[in-house]
Amino acid sequence: MFVPGLIERKRDGGALTPGEWRELMRSYVAGAVPDYQMAALLMAGFLRGFTSEETAALLDAMMDSGSRLDISRPGRPVVDKHSTGGVGDKVSLALAPLVASCGLSVPMMSGRGLGHTGGTLDKLESIPGFRTDLPLDAVRRQVERIGCAMIGQTPEIAPADKRLYALRDVTATVECIPLIAASIMSKKLCEGLSGLVLDVKQGSGAFITDPERSRELAETMIRLGEQRGCHTVALLTAMDRPLGRACGNALETEEAIMALRGSGPQDLHDVTIALGVEMLVLAGERDHARAAARLEEAISSGKAAQKFQEIIEAQGGDPKVVEDPSLLPQAEEVEVYYAQRGGTVLAVEPRTIGHAIVEMGGGRHQVEDSVDHSVGFVITARPGQTVHASEPLASIFARDRDGIELGRRALDQAIRIGDGHPAPLPLIEARVTSKGHEPLV
Amino acid sequence: MFVPGLIERKRDGGALTPGEWRELMRSYVAGAVPDYQMAALLMAGFLRGFTSEETAALLDAMMDSGSRLDISRPGRPVVDKHSTGGVGDKVSLALAPLVASCGLSVPMMSGRGLGHTGGTLDKLESIPGFRTDLPLDAVRRQVERIGCAMIGQTPEIAPADKRLYALRDVTATVECIPLIAASIMSKKLCEGLSGLVLDVKQGSGAFITDPERSRELAETMIRLGEQRGCHTVALLTAMDRPLGRACGNALETEEAIMALRGSGPQDLHDVTIALGVEMLVLAGERDHARAAARLEEAISSGKAAQKFQEIIEAQGGDPKVVEDPSLLPQAEEVEVYYAQRGGTVLAVEPRTIGHAIVEMGGGRHQVEDSVDHSVGFVITARPGQTVHASEPLASIFARDRDGIELGRRALDQAIRIGDGHPAPLPLIEARVTSKGHEPLV
Repeated sequence: MFVPGLIERKRDGGALTPGEWRELMRSYVAGAVPDYQMAALLMAGFLRGFTSEETAALLDAMMDSGSRLDISRPGRPVVDKHSTGGVGDKVSLALAPLVASCGLSVPMMSGRGLGHTGGTLDKLESIPGFRTDLPLDAVRRQVERIGCAMIGQTPEIAPADKRLYALRDVTATVECIPLIAASIMSKKLCEGLSGLVLDVKQGSGAFITDPERSRELAETMIRLGEQRGCHTVALLTAMDRPLGRACGNALETEEAIMALRGSGPQDLHDVTIALGVEMLVLAGERDHARAAARLEEAISSGKAAQKFQEIIEAQGGDPKVVEDPSLLPQAEEVEVYYAQRGGTVLAVEPRTIGHAIVEMGGGRHQVEDSVDHSVGFVITARPGQTVHASEPLASIFARDRDGIELGRRALDQAIRIGDGHPAPLPLIEARVTSKGHEPLV
Repeated sequence: MFVPGLIERKRDGGALTPGEWRELMRSYVAGAVPDYQMAALLMAGFLRGFTSEETAALLDAMMDSGSRLDISRPGRPVVDKHSTGGVGDKVSLALAPLVASCGLSVPMMSGRGLGHTGGTLDKLESIPGFRTDLPLDAVRRQVERIGCAMIGQTPEIAPADKRLYALRDVTATVECIPLIAASIMSKKLCEGLSGLVLDVKQGSGAFITDPERSRELAETMIRLGEQRGCHTVALLTAMDRPLGRACGNALETEEAIMALRGSGPQDLHDVTIALGVEMLVLAGERDHARAAARLEEAISSGKAAQKFQEIIEAQGGDPKVVEDPSLLPQAEEVEVYYAQRGGTVLAVEPRTIGHAIVEMGGGRHQVEDSVDHSVGFVITARPGQTVHASEPLASIFARDRDGIELGRRALDQAIRIGDGHPAPLPLIEARVTSKGHEPLV
């Protein structure tokens, strides 16, 4: 295979055949194609585009580069959810046990926080003892036994994607819809799913802020999933403000536990139920209302919280955190943040919050950085709400006074109060399936 | 320096500052910026373009990455020639001694053949014993002593260019005018020239086949040279057929020697004199006709041939080849090629010839490949010429019968005979200076 010839074709706007993508990925993972050739090819594709056939071939090549999870427990459909990421998005922590407690299998593979968005793995690891690096075989056994595992991408799953993602991260080739879609779907489809629900975030705090492009991303992933026999549905949800009140790893875990026990914030509850309904429907439940009722019952009966305890226990963590969230890491310093003036809350900027958490030690600049799980914010102010001067709007959780200072300055910027009329995005704007786009507001 | 940020800016159509290019090249040569980031950046620049300021900054950064040749011999202006490369282009071998014999200093740094075009170094190395890898200090002393050295790019000269060129070669980022211009000029300007003549080839056998783009390349190089105090002139010459009759290393060396002795083919003579005139004029000769007369006199008096002998001797080669070219490597098999039909020679395709020489062992697929100097062609057929069936058109020189077969098939393709009226490009179409474009036909 003459790689410069393939790069040249991509550079000049042509397409590679599925066979060429397969061979290229195989050679790349085997170390026969160097990173510099792959980097040139990715940049050419970033600027010249990929056909849908190429995106599909890339996905298949990435999936074929490793193993698949093969879960066999008859009568328990295998489903999962993926979020494109945001600030305060702790949905996975509540949703996976909730849906598993309704009889589905959920082999949830998640990522770490990088940039302004948090990662499910970091949130889970705030639970003392919790391990996310299980071998693939243990994952399979755990899902077959208790219906759910919550893990990181194992080395066996889509190694080509893992290597490609690391390369894209340092060569400015991340924000490319075909590459994003193929990367996400390669991991999810390796879980052997029959159904997948996508939570595609929209707004200033989303990974992709342009609504046109986030819809395109949803459509691309749906097409890729459906082509491979995995029914795929997306909800477009709001990320122009944080989801829920807690932002920061342990604080979010606590809030997810509250949601599982029926006492979480309304928006977190609503998004969790909406995604859960889609998962149940994909698994065979015909009636949306009945799906919602089953989920509500799992929460009120305590089954959902109990399932989370089972998962925590199976993965080496302390299940008592579900009854007593004070066992989670606690910040050294806590301070209340007050409104500097009266008026209407015009915005709570998620990106500013997300970046502040990184600065305060609760996120990463580099993949190798360690994370302080205790730091973050609990923000009660919501866009559209009327506030008085000196009214408490948030609490800052930090490891020291410098962290409190950082947090305060971030909130000064993030929470804008004035006299206008903000128009926050609808919490759940639309449902996208292979059949089209269905507005929900 | 955050390299992904620079790549992103280039990707999105922005420009890097001169300071950023300098720092980037320094870090690249120091090994702090990996090849994969440079490859992504080059591809982004290839597709998005470079401003003239960026091209100049890139050139300066490449020059600053190494040493310069500092020749001090008062009264002997330092000039050089560069050709964009072609098939049968052995001009350098004749021109450097010729101009040096007229009292100029010519520190000629050349390259090897790669792709369909030959390289001056390979041709020189067909002379038994000839060494092209002199240390920079020896080059300086030799030029000061005898007025000329003919060498390869030393490790001290523009190491950033050397590394960048190797990377571009394997990442499909070669054919980019700003990168080509900066690469060529970084080496030439490190020779400490007061004048430079460019032979920019045009036509199907040129490196760049589009006439617009080859003119743009000439103009870019002229601007870069003039900005740095090196007067630069370009001639646009024909490469829609091979130059001269000989194609292949030793065969071309022999033909260059014939040209130096006044008995070479007319087209080779004319191009050599035209370029030599420009070099003499750049060195202070005011009258074009007198410059031509000086060059003709150097040939007819034997001074030019004698200068070539001095150079060969200084670089370890056998100077007797100038009197007796049969000392050059001789092919095992030689066969005459006859016209298959009568008619007009419509074309002698240089690319087909160049690629055939590579296949016959006389060129390289990879930088590491060794070269058989003896193989090649002597083609007497010229476009426009009328030939009879079975008339001899060329001789094939090969190491075995398979080589002869390869050569014959290549000539079948390359020499097209028919009933049309070919319109070969004028041998020397135009002269380009910083003042503009002056047609010569």
